[in-house]
Amino acid sequence: MMMIDGTQAISLKNMPTNAPKEDRDKVTNKAAVKANIEKLTELQAKMYAQNEYSLLLVFQAMDAAGKDGMIRSVTSGLNPQGTQVYSFKLPSTEELDHDYLWRTHKAVPERGRVGIFNRSYYEDVLVVRVHNLIKDRQLPDALIDENIWQNRFNDIKAFEAYMARNGQVTLKFFLNVSKDEQKKRILSRIDDPAKNWKFSAADIKERKYWDEYQAAYEDAINHTASETSPWYIIPADNKWYARQLVSSIIVKTLESLDLHYPELSDEEKSRLAGYREQLMKE
Amino acid sequence: MMMIDGTQAISLKNMPTNAPKEDRDKVTNKAAVKANIEKLTELQAKMYAQNEYSLLLVFQAMDAAGKDGMIRSVTSGLNPQGTQVYSFKLPSTEELDHDYLWRTHKAVPERGRVGIFNRSYYEDVLVVRVHNLIKDRQLPDALIDENIWQNRFNDIKAFEAYMARNGQVTLKFFLNVSKDEQKKRILSRIDDPAKNWKFSAADIKERKYWDEYQAAYEDAINHTASETSPWYIIPADNKWYARQLVSSIIVKTLESLDLHYPELSDEEKSRLAGYREQLMKE
Repeated sequence: MMMIDGTQAISLKNMPTNAPKEDRDKVTNKAAVKANIEKLTELQAKMYAQNEYSLLLVFQAMDAAGKDGMIRSVTSGLNPQGTQVYSFKLPSTEELDHDYLWRTHKAVPERGRVGIFNRSYYEDVLVVRVHNLIKDRQLPDALIDENIWQNRFNDIKAFEAYMARNGQVTLKFFLNVSKDEQKKRILSRIDDPAKNWKFSAADIKERKYWDEYQAAYEDAINHTASETSPWYIIPADNKWYARQLVSSIIVKTLESLDLHYPELSDEEKSRLAGYREQLMKE
Repeated sequence: MMMIDGTQAISLKNMPTNAPKEDRDKVTNKAAVKANIEKLTELQAKMYAQNEYSLLLVFQAMDAAGKDGMIRSVTSGLNPQGTQVYSFKLPSTEELDHDYLWRTHKAVPERGRVGIFNRSYYEDVLVVRVHNLIKDRQLPDALIDENIWQNRFNDIKAFEAYMARNGQVTLKFFLNVSKDEQKKRILSRIDDPAKNWKFSAADIKERKYWDEYQAAYEDAINHTASETSPWYIIPADNKWYARQLVSSIIVKTLESLDLHYPELSDEEKSRLAGYREQLMKE
């Protein structure tokens, strides 16, 4: 299974990047996504009315793995009033003047809502680690030691457990694209004028750190996966299969919660009856 | 000692509410506060220039224990540009639609600054517990069980440890006023026209829950005190002694950090020399 709950360590290089042969059909996958979106729309409406649980979807991946398309697809049927999407780019000076969870904690979804993080606090154990940016993070020297990544994993895990105890369901998705597929997609961004705007020279530069990123992801996933805030490794070479998988996981998760429209007490019901009478007398 | 670091449980009823007899002199205490404020001003300037550490002072107490006067006194010499004071009152609807640390985490001091919390996230294990407000906190029923307070203590402790690893020094002060002294102070708010504005009928109502609050404080203090984020139980019946004590603790804590104005590297120094030359040529 692609669900990682922390009970067993995984090795990223053993995880599939492509759909099983029998599940590669675009039409079938598209239809499944559509059906999931319909269920999701109904589940979101209940979650919004109940106003107790919230759902946070974290998307992490190498460049060109399909995060943007995935988010567009998954959110396509959602009520924007109950949806919050945040993209976390290079931190601002104000953000760097705070702890690394500050900017993301501010942005967690309100009760009843679906929040989507396009990148997240995990960048602070990924790009920061791969490029050794920790030196530029305004930390006192005394606080930078060899335990820093393990401490960050523990802190992130504790944060997610805390959020779970306060009603937030956190699902973390790693879109697992192969190095070959990434090359193909970057090439098409260069060759196809309609895709030129998506190309960034940084993609080429970051690609050189492929192995370092894979190692950082593997370490982060293994140390922060938990039963209540699992990681999912999504084979991402086939976009429609990936979207079908992610939308299925979200539906299954929301169905496992006790989502329901708030029920009125007898007292509230009789009060409603009173208001009805009042209106009818007008 | 009044410093509680979690190694030993304390019983609030054994903790002094008044200054030791030999330390009750107002003039001496006032002079000590003044000397501390001067040191604090210098230490804050260094902390601000260094821009790595931040200091959070959390003040919790029963009504009329002297929080406001304490904060006015401690902040009197500080540079407002490096100081952030927040009073946490009844949570707003937006705040209630988030986890209970959300509103306080947003308000933690920036690097280099002193932050002061007049009340804090501790209210979520104090007033919420004493008045059983947890039912109104929009939590799914499945998340409310007999472990909720212990879980909150653990989460708060983990949050403070995380903040410490990110450069924030957190000091928590409980201003320990006696029930008799509180009565005296509330009476003077009723009798002295100049103090009438400070009186609130809620003080009388809350006073009836004195024992419940003391028990909740004791439990919270014992379960969230740690070496890096200690609690201090400050005898608060004598205001000037309390202020002297708190200001002394802050000075001592900041002096224990390696605060220093940023030093220039040789390269930076020679660049400065270049700029000097440039300006002199004008």
